[in-house]
Amino acid sequence: MKQSGIDSGKIIRRKSDGELEYCADHLTIEEPLEIRVNGNAVATTMRTPGSDEELAAGFLLSEAIVRDRSDILNISLGENNSINVELAKSVRVKLNSAQRFGTISSSCGLCGKTSIDAIRQSFAPIRSEQVRVEINTLLSFPDRLRKHQSDFNRTGGLHAAAIFALDGSSETVREDIGRHNAVDKAIGREFLDRQLPLDRHVLIVSGRASFEIMQKALAAGITIIGSVSAPSSLAVQFARESNQTLIGFLRPPSFNIYSHAERIILDDR
Amino acid sequence: MKQSGIDSGKIIRRKSDGELEYCADHLTIEEPLEIRVNGNAVATTMRTPGSDEELAAGFLLSEAIVRDRSDILNISLGENNSINVELAKSVRVKLNSAQRFGTISSSCGLCGKTSIDAIRQSFAPIRSEQVRVEINTLLSFPDRLRKHQSDFNRTGGLHAAAIFALDGSSETVREDIGRHNAVDKAIGREFLDRQLPLDRHVLIVSGRASFEIMQKALAAGITIIGSVSAPSSLAVQFARESNQTLIGFLRPPSFNIYSHAERIILDDR
Repeated sequence: MKQSGIDSGKIIRRKSDGELEYCADHLTIEEPLEIRVNGNAVATTMRTPGSDEELAAGFLLSEAIVRDRSDILNISLGENNSINVELAKSVRVKLNSAQRFGTISSSCGLCGKTSIDAIRQSFAPIRSEQVRVEINTLLSFPDRLRKHQSDFNRTGGLHAAAIFALDGSSETVREDIGRHNAVDKAIGREFLDRQLPLDRHVLIVSGRASFEIMQKALAAGITIIGSVSAPSSLAVQFARESNQTLIGFLRPPSFNIYSHAERIILDDR
Repeated sequence: MKQSGIDSGKIIRRKSDGELEYCADHLTIEEPLEIRVNGNAVATTMRTPGSDEELAAGFLLSEAIVRDRSDILNISLGENNSINVELAKSVRVKLNSAQRFGTISSSCGLCGKTSIDAIRQSFAPIRSEQVRVEINTLLSFPDRLRKHQSDFNRTGGLHAAAIFALDGSSETVREDIGRHNAVDKAIGREFLDRQLPLDRHVLIVSGRASFEIMQKALAAGITIIGSVSAPSSLAVQFARESNQTLIGFLRPPSFNIYSHAERIILDDR
């Protein structure tokens, strides 16, 4: 994994025995990235640098601006923390209020729509049948996610997202200071590699499952979502309506299944 | 504290011994709130319902749309999760791209500006001198914050923010599914009560300290910010430039001071 921290300079640390020391700490990097489409700024997100092409691709997919790999002709990093995505001429982009997203903080997901009705994107519910995951495979995922994180990243507040094949045979792990950015990066990688829809995959997130995480998963066609922490009310409602399996508090050997439990092969004997 | 969870309906729980049970869980409520100014939608935020007037006031303060209590004539809850803030005629609101914020997810802070330069708000650095907090008072704050949270809120992913007087004599605690919303609610309460600037106060947040948290604190004139978790690189940089004292990993008896340590009276003998 890429270095995602920098030296803090001298800080004062009070240790558990009350002694003070002057030392350096590591800081998770938070910097803005301006995402441009055909040269026009559409969003600024606060993110941890790295995998910016994936972040931009995943973001545009989540926002339904692109739907197919061929929609993107080129992605190029610019100066001053900016990135430009050149779209195929066939892609209609309406940069009105519906597709201007503004500044997105390091912990933000969907931004840019000022009416409540516009929050729900136009992604159809999952239709894949016969997608199932073995319980022991599912239980192995959080540990595999953690193995990709350094001690610093685990304690320093970096979020992680991983996309696993149903049988655990492949994994794509990305980290970011923002939960939604980590998901965008992982999904963006698969999108750029023409792996969508990810209906035979599982998304695991290190933090909570909120509405926007479920929506990003749906944009990529992901059937099963596991969160190490709590889901929100709207995430559960969205999962039930979108035919997604949502697992919360995935802390082996225990977990909760909030929707569409039929996809988990619970009998491990 | 207000009830902030709802029943999940029946879920499947796998217990630590591997046994399955059908039971109900509590879910943190996540719902949109459309914030309107003089009848015009400026932002939609994903939040936990409750203290919506405070949330709207704190948000508008953070975004420098209002600066003084007299700028707000009236706040009224509408139907369909909307709230309208009526401003005094003297307040100039430019609802162009700079002051349209779009949809803000449950974990988002600053939204709405598509240029990186526009991210930094126009708040002057803190100028208060002689503001100091006793170490033992500081160390008492995380416990006081936790006492306001129910077990559900602690485990279920609700964030909390508290504003304490320097001597610990007063406290304002608010919770929300979004870190930034909890801060907006606490600051909004103080703003509506004409307590600003909060230069003789300490802000404690249950999660990480990112750029937007520091900026919201600066908007309210808060001098000292303590985070139970890690600060980001940009939060530390912002604190140093804004003359704010930033404390991270505030887990008594230990903590780190990242900026302006002169405000902490470290000698507790």
